[in-house]
Formats: sequence, C-alpha cells, structure tokens
Amino acid sequence: MTDYPLLRLKKNEDRRLRGGHLWVFSNEVDVAATPLKGLERGTLALLENARGEALGVITTHADSLIAGRLLTRDPHEAINQGFFQKRFERALRLREGSYGRPFYRLIFGESDGLPGLIVDRFGDVVVIQTNTAGMERLQPWIFKALEASLSPRAIILRNTSSLRSLEGLEPHTEVVMGSVAESIEIEENGARFLMDPLAGQKTGWFFDHRDNRALLSDMVAGKRVLDLFSYTGAWAIPAALQGARSVDCVDASAQALELALQNALLNGVSDRLKVHQMDVFDFLKAARESRDHFDVIILDPPAFIKRKKDHPKGFEAYRRLNQMALQLLSPGGLLVSASCSFHLSREQLQDLLRAASRHLDRHLVLIARGGQAKDHPIHPAIPETDYLKAFFCHVGPSL
Amino acid sequence: MTDYPLLRLKKNEDRRLRGGHLWVFSNEVDVAATPLKGLERGTLALLENARGEALGVITTHADSLIAGRLLTRDPHEAINQGFFQKRFERALRLREGSYGRPFYRLIFGESDGLPGLIVDRFGDVVVIQTNTAGMERLQPWIFKALEASLSPRAIILRNTSSLRSLEGLEPHTEVVMGSVAESIEIEENGARFLMDPLAGQKTGWFFDHRDNRALLSDMVAGKRVLDLFSYTGAWAIPAALQGARSVDCVDASAQALELALQNALLNGVSDRLKVHQMDVFDFLKAARESRDHFDVIILDPPAFIKRKKDHPKGFEAYRRLNQMALQLLSPGGLLVSASCSFHLSREQLQDLLRAASRHLDRHLVLIARGGQAKDHPIHPAIPETDYLKAFFCHVGPSL
Repeated sequence: MTDYPLLRLKKNEDRRLRGGHLWVFSNEVDVAATPLKGLERGTLALLENARGEALGVITTHADSLIAGRLLTRDPHEAINQGFFQKRFERALRLREGSYGRPFYRLIFGESDGLPGLIVDRFGDVVVIQTNTAGMERLQPWIFKALEASLSPRAIILRNTSSLRSLEGLEPHTEVVMGSVAESIEIEENGARFLMDPLAGQKTGWFFDHRDNRALLSDMVAGKRVLDLFSYTGAWAIPAALQGARSVDCVDASAQALELALQNALLNGVSDRLKVHQMDVFDFLKAARESRDHFDVIILDPPAFIKRKKDHPKGFEAYRRLNQMALQLLSPGGLLVSASCSFHLSREQLQDLLRAASRHLDRHLVLIARGGQAKDHPIHPAIPETDYLKAFFCHVGPSL
Repeated sequence: MTDYPLLRLKKNEDRRLRGGHLWVFSNEVDVAATPLKGLERGTLALLENARGEALGVITTHADSLIAGRLLTRDPHEAINQGFFQKRFERALRLREGSYGRPFYRLIFGESDGLPGLIVDRFGDVVVIQTNTAGMERLQPWIFKALEASLSPRAIILRNTSSLRSLEGLEPHTEVVMGSVAESIEIEENGARFLMDPLAGQKTGWFFDHRDNRALLSDMVAGKRVLDLFSYTGAWAIPAALQGARSVDCVDASAQALELALQNALLNGVSDRLKVHQMDVFDFLKAARESRDHFDVIILDPPAFIKRKKDHPKGFEAYRRLNQMALQLLSPGGLLVSASCSFHLSREQLQDLLRAASRHLDRHLVLIARGGQAKDHPIHPAIPETDYLKAFFCHVGPSL
C-alpha cells in the first residue's frame, strides 16, 4: 500500500465507482471514521469502502461537492512521473490510431483516467489545463512526464477555465517550459491554421468539432456558406478549400477574424472568404431584412448553458438563433446546428429544430448527427464527458 | 379540394400532426361524424380537424392502430404519378448531394414524405417495399413515376417485410418491370459488391451502415479483424482493402458467405479474408476456449428486438454477445457494437457496454457513435425513423 491518508465511504456508497464512475461526493464519505476536514486541498488519499476494501487512489477536496476523483483502481500504484507517463503513452496510442499528425487533444480528463486534466497537442507545443486542486498539486509530475513522453519545444499552462473557481483556484497562464511565438501553425482536415496558444479561447483551438468539420466539407462544393460564430475559421477554411462558392464568417471578436483572414491567405482562399465583425443576432436580423439567403449555414455558438440554472435563458437563445438561421436558408439548404452545452441534451436540440421548422412550415430532416472527435472519447459511466452535438439538417419546403 | 372521402379528427387530436408527425391513430378519429368502417383498406381520404380545417391527404386503414398516414399537407394536391415524381426528384437531389454514385436508399418512408414506402437504388435496378395497404394501392403510380424519374432497367417489388402483416398484407416478390440476373454489381466505400436483389435479405443490401463502415475502414490497417454476422461482406471487404492483416467473417448463411467470397475475389482480397459458416454464439465460445484474440471486432447482429415485448429476451442476447466479443478483444482493441433494433435505445446500448466492460474489468471508452447513413434521414417528429446505432469502443486494461 501507498502511505496516503485514508478516506472511507459509507455503506453501499461504492456502488457508482464499481459501475465505472470516478467521482466521490462529499456526502458519501464516512467523515466520522475518516474526516475530510483537515485534508489539505487537493491532497492524495487512499479510498476504501465501508467493509475496508481498498478502491484505489483519489485526489481530494475537502470543501467541494466532489470530494474525491479516482486516479487509479490499484491501491498500490504510486502517483508520480511514471504514473503520468503510462497514462500519456496509452492516450498517445489511441490518438495515433485515429489521426496521422500530432495535432489533437491528448488527454480528455476522466476518459483518459486523469480527472481534472486536459492536454492539447499542437505539434511540439503542448497546452495544459488543470481544473482541479488535486491535479494542480501534481503539475510538477505532469510537466516531467510530458517532457519524457513527447519531448515538446514548449509547455504552456492555460489555467483559465471557469471550472477552477468551483475548486477555489485562481486563473493563471504561464509558459512552463521553452518559449512560443504569438501564433503557431497547425493542421486540421487538410488545411493549415495559425492559432494563438497564449491568448486564444480555452487552449487556443477547438479540436472537438474536427470530424464534424470534415463531414461538412464534403457537402459544400458550389455552395454559398455562412459561418456563424466563426472564430478563426476552422469550419470556414476547409469549406472554401472544398469548393464552396463563398464563405461569410461572422464573429464578435476582431482578433479571431484577423486570424481567420490570415488563415484564408495561408490556404489560398482569400478570394472566397469574407469576414463580418459584429454580433451574430444583429447580422441575422440585417440579413433577414435584406432577404439574403445561404445554401449552407454553420451555427456553432459558444456554450449558452454553462450551469443548469442557465437553462431557460440559454435554451431561448439557442431557439432564437436556430429559427433565425432557418429563415436565411435557401430551399433544400443545409443547417449545421451545434451545441457544446452539456446541459442542452441531444433530445432537446432535436426537438428545438423540429419545433422551429414546423413554426416556419419547413420540412426538416437530420441527415447526420455528429458528436465529439475521436480524441475526446466518451466515458460511458460519466455523462459530463459527452457534451458536443452537431446536427446536419436538410431543410426544404413543407411536404 | 380533391374528391376523396372525408375523415375528421376529435377535438385537439390534430396536435401531433401540427408538431410534424404524420400518423393518425384510430382512437383520434371522430368516427361518429366520419366512420372508419366501410372505408376500403388503404383508400385515400381528406383529413380535417374538429374545427373543419383541412389538414391534408392521408392513406387510411380502418382495421389498423395507425388509421391514417399523411401524404401531403396540401388538401388540394392530387395523389398521382406527378405527386410521386415530385417526391422522387426531391429525394434524388438530397441523395445526389451526399453520394456521387447511384447506389443508395432513395426513399426512406416518412422522412421523404412517403409513409410506408422504401425504394433502394442499385444503379439501374430499383427495389421497392410497400409496407402499408395505402402504399400498395398506389403502386401503379409509383412504378410509373420511377420509370419517369430514373429510367431504370428493372423494378423489383420485395414485399416481404414483417411489417406488412400488421396491415393484413401477404408477402410477395415480383419483377414488375424489365428483368434482372441473379446477382448485380454495386459500389460502396470504394469497393465492388455482388448482391442478389431477388433472394437477399430485405432489399438485398443494407445501405444504412455505409458511413459507419467508411469510418471503420480508416482504423484497420495492419489489424486482425473479426466480422460477426458478416452477411455478404459490406464491413469486411473495405476493411481488407484498407490494409487489415486478416478478416474472419462469421455468418450462419452459406448463401451470404458464398457471396462474401465472390466479393473478396472481385476486390482482390481473397488472401486476407476467411469465412466461417456457423452460429455466432458457437464461434465466440470456441474462440474463447482456444484463447483466440482479435484487434478489431465488428458486431452487427440482426434485430433481436423487433417488437417491444421482445425486449427482455433480445436485450439479454445483445448483452451476452457484447460481453463475449469483449473477451476476445486484444488489449487496446476496437469493438464496433451495432444494433438496428429501434426498441434498444442508444442509452441502453451504451449502458450495456459500460456494464459489460466493468464486469470484465476493462476500461472502455466510446471514440465515435454512428447512426444511419445520410440516405436514411431522421424525421425529428417520428422516433421510429431513428433506429440504427454503431458504437466504436476502444477497450484497454482497467485504469
């Protein structure tokens, strides 16, 4: 056994963990036998059930609803550089089986057996997020293990996720190792992109829609495409490369659109790509008034429902956006309606599309429904690991 | 207005139709005002709500739970050759936008505005299923419209679906127009296949898994592949073409495996493809006893849950098969677990995989979850149009 402090569960409270889940809620801990109080935030502990059987090693958080997260089911496994290297190398094999080039999410938290850790790989630059106090304490091992497994040129810590506030952690960005320029070049779906690992959103790039973007790019030849919330052009550039007649990118961020234009130049599609720096709702209203139409509309907004309590307001925003987008679609057009809100279920998004199309008296069918790319595997016991939706809707006149 | 007989709904019973659905249940009809009895089976009728507002034209069935199916929301639209041609041409445009070659499901019932009709296109041979009495009565128009829209060499009626018994229809196979040889050649995912439109299962070919098969074929290079319920090799042949080290096909049907072998020959992969004519459960038991292992296992069984009441028994069959398949998987292997049972939900299949992997102490994550190919669009108001699942599971030792 390792010499970590002990945490014991109440009777039968090991059921979820036996079913595959990795979390321990604070009310499941037998605090009379093993107090949570006094455990330093993020410290490691050995977990056992009420019968005293060891369940594995966890990171702990005495003041969080989620009091423990399982790192390994082997109670004898030491959590050190070697532990992380084993996890990284296993995750590498999975990614290398799916993608030929070193641009992907290497570690997707729980699904890769590392709750609280995100690692994105941009060639020889690695960007990390540690979203729990437990993972933050283990950062020295993580950095060393990454150096050993990937020999990167630079390691960047982008600890800016809003999840960190739940753990009492401050936002923090730092180049931990090496150095990086303002923008680096990556590849996705046969296109080249400049991205900014230090100032971009999240880790600077959203790998999760890659497979959906690939699917779309087969359907745009000769089409007039509108990309709403375009960010730096990850949907737009491959669409232009695959023969879209024109692509209009709309985003509120001048910085993102500046990169989108540079990316268009880099891929030789500047003649077909236009950017509009404005609020998406305003753009949609103006386009509706001028009776403008598009053959393909990509609607990939930021998360409008970050927490459960945001649902009514966020749902209404999704509803309005989808309905306005449908109004701008040419007959027989394609709407790609995406959502990265875990709290907007697939069923809710589908029903919202059904209702909006009926309201406008259109015949809408779903020709494909995509989720996260293969480098964001879903853990079947943990619903939160399944968050991304991209519905490909063919929309024609009422039948 | 057309001069079809009138059918009136009870108060508020038009709600589902206004929401996008196309079915009328017998208990929703105001039979006091407009009796169902006496309507000849399958006859057309004009549907109206309790306020006397016309809702469209339906096919009827006086003795079925589903008493009406909406063909058009336009009460003035005549149901004739022209009506079917319009539907076919619209469906054609949708398919041609997704697939370059003329091999696809052209009409997928409700999703294409033609409840009860299935049309599969195999180049210049067309295979039809009419699954309702209403559609069967309209066959003369359907044949004429198909000739006008597609100029096929042959039209075949494969009216052998078990759904027909619900409508009191007999099974029936007929070459309606032209003539066909025992096997014809089609293309899918870059491979060539012989299929038998007269004696094969259903219409002779399962187009619905096409996109899932394409996804798989990118993940098999150098792998040892096992294809359970292989039928004529639609998963196996592209896998062999994409560099699988070996592919073992298991199926109970000698006839299907004979075609699989011919298809291997046709694609030049005979050296890598083996067939085993036996019961899949028996094969799995024998392989487990001899401690055989595979890197990739495709488990695409026939529907074990055809009706709701078959659920307990069918679920148990899915559970056993998936668990046995997981036991034969090499560490870090891939299981493609499919189900075409509408009554086995995505959630149930995912939970079954979770439970089976925990039972065997494996770490299983879903790297992709596929559904029906783009020629089987989902109607968002009609759950029954969404039936196919293919979960791509990466399976390694416990974490």
